[in-house]
Amino acid sequence: MSLTLHYAPDNASLIVRLALEHMGQDYRTCLVDRAARAQEGAAYRALNPHGLIPTLETPDGPIFETAAILLWLDERSPGTLGPEPGAPGRGHHLKWLVFLANTLHPALRMSFYPDKYCPGHEAALRAHMQAETRRHFGAVETAAKGPFFGGDAPSAIDFYLGPLIRWAALYPRARPGDLDLGAFPRLAGLCRALEALAPVQRVLAAEGMTPSAFTAPELPVPPEGSAT
Amino acid sequence: MSLTLHYAPDNASLIVRLALEHMGQDYRTCLVDRAARAQEGAAYRALNPHGLIPTLETPDGPIFETAAILLWLDERSPGTLGPEPGAPGRGHHLKWLVFLANTLHPALRMSFYPDKYCPGHEAALRAHMQAETRRHFGAVETAAKGPFFGGDAPSAIDFYLGPLIRWAALYPRARPGDLDLGAFPRLAGLCRALEALAPVQRVLAAEGMTPSAFTAPELPVPPEGSAT
Repeated sequence: MSLTLHYAPDNASLIVRLALEHMGQDYRTCLVDRAARAQEGAAYRALNPHGLIPTLETPDGPIFETAAILLWLDERSPGTLGPEPGAPGRGHHLKWLVFLANTLHPALRMSFYPDKYCPGHEAALRAHMQAETRRHFGAVETAAKGPFFGGDAPSAIDFYLGPLIRWAALYPRARPGDLDLGAFPRLAGLCRALEALAPVQRVLAAEGMTPSAFTAPELPVPPEGSAT
Repeated sequence: MSLTLHYAPDNASLIVRLALEHMGQDYRTCLVDRAARAQEGAAYRALNPHGLIPTLETPDGPIFETAAILLWLDERSPGTLGPEPGAPGRGHHLKWLVFLANTLHPALRMSFYPDKYCPGHEAALRAHMQAETRRHFGAVETAAKGPFFGGDAPSAIDFYLGPLIRWAALYPRARPGDLDLGAFPRLAGLCRALEALAPVQRVLAAEGMTPSAFTAPELPVPPEGSAT
């Protein structure tokens, strides 16, 4: 199966890349030049009309939306990114995956790009959504089982959560959320468990991040491209 | 399979109810008394810690998040709410379902409850997000195939879109978005196709909506409970 991930370092494509590498999938990467705003150009919009990263080119056409890509990949190899359909815990998996996609991730996005939601009142929106983000992480902390979110095996939720936790501490550069993992012991454990996985370390290295990119995030130094 | 849908009239539970009725699923409904803010009480939060409607009680535990419930139901009867996993068009289906869940639905929600996102600047956020909502409907219009979103058969996306279109025209009561379907001919056709389905009409009647609840929405007159 031919798969091409359109990515930028430390962007939402990181989530998909962690999943692909964990699955042992064969895939190619195609850098989207954020510095030149290539994601807003006609060539990229032909793949993804929203001009957002990532897009995964597949034999079933280009797929965008991080959670949709994770769901599609999981369907191709059931059980590799979460409990199989019909298995106990599948409902728990799906509801928290969707929560990340439609609540936690958008809350972070609003704190990073408040001008896209409430122009003229950016600081107020950012402050409120940074607080909301911490509240949402609290809900995830309560639902997590450990060492990974759903138990012993990493799932799509872990590959999604690790980057969200990283970004909440690190971005936006001028006024980072400074998420303190000390307040979320299960999420901290989940980040340590992620960092112990060899496929995760391969992805972090490829995008210029340190080995402790989730527990002690630092700005990336990508070998190619720009994170912002 | 025992299923109980915790619902309020004309709330997001409507989306799940349309899907359940379309599938011919056996299910019970349990009214959440919004007038008494029952969704924020301890009993409801034991099912859904976020205090949001809907929740579906299942043999696999309580499931929340509208899109997660739709995905879980679809997995139990593959093909009834969209192309089967592995079938052509599955990627198209998943990416637009997730887009509704993480972009269009949240944009509407921000315009309905701006105080939950940017307190002190509600009017500015609402105005911007109502414009964003129209832009997002435009993207869906472009991707729709007709008569239903994915072609000849209704899918989870249609059951999600119909209510979103309705709400964008109707709510919030004081300053409704007044979405004009004339600008979106494929979405208008999709709404007409939905209204022609007998299971859809059963749900609309049960929640006190008129038969043209999508093409010519009016405020509901629910036989029990409150929509807001």
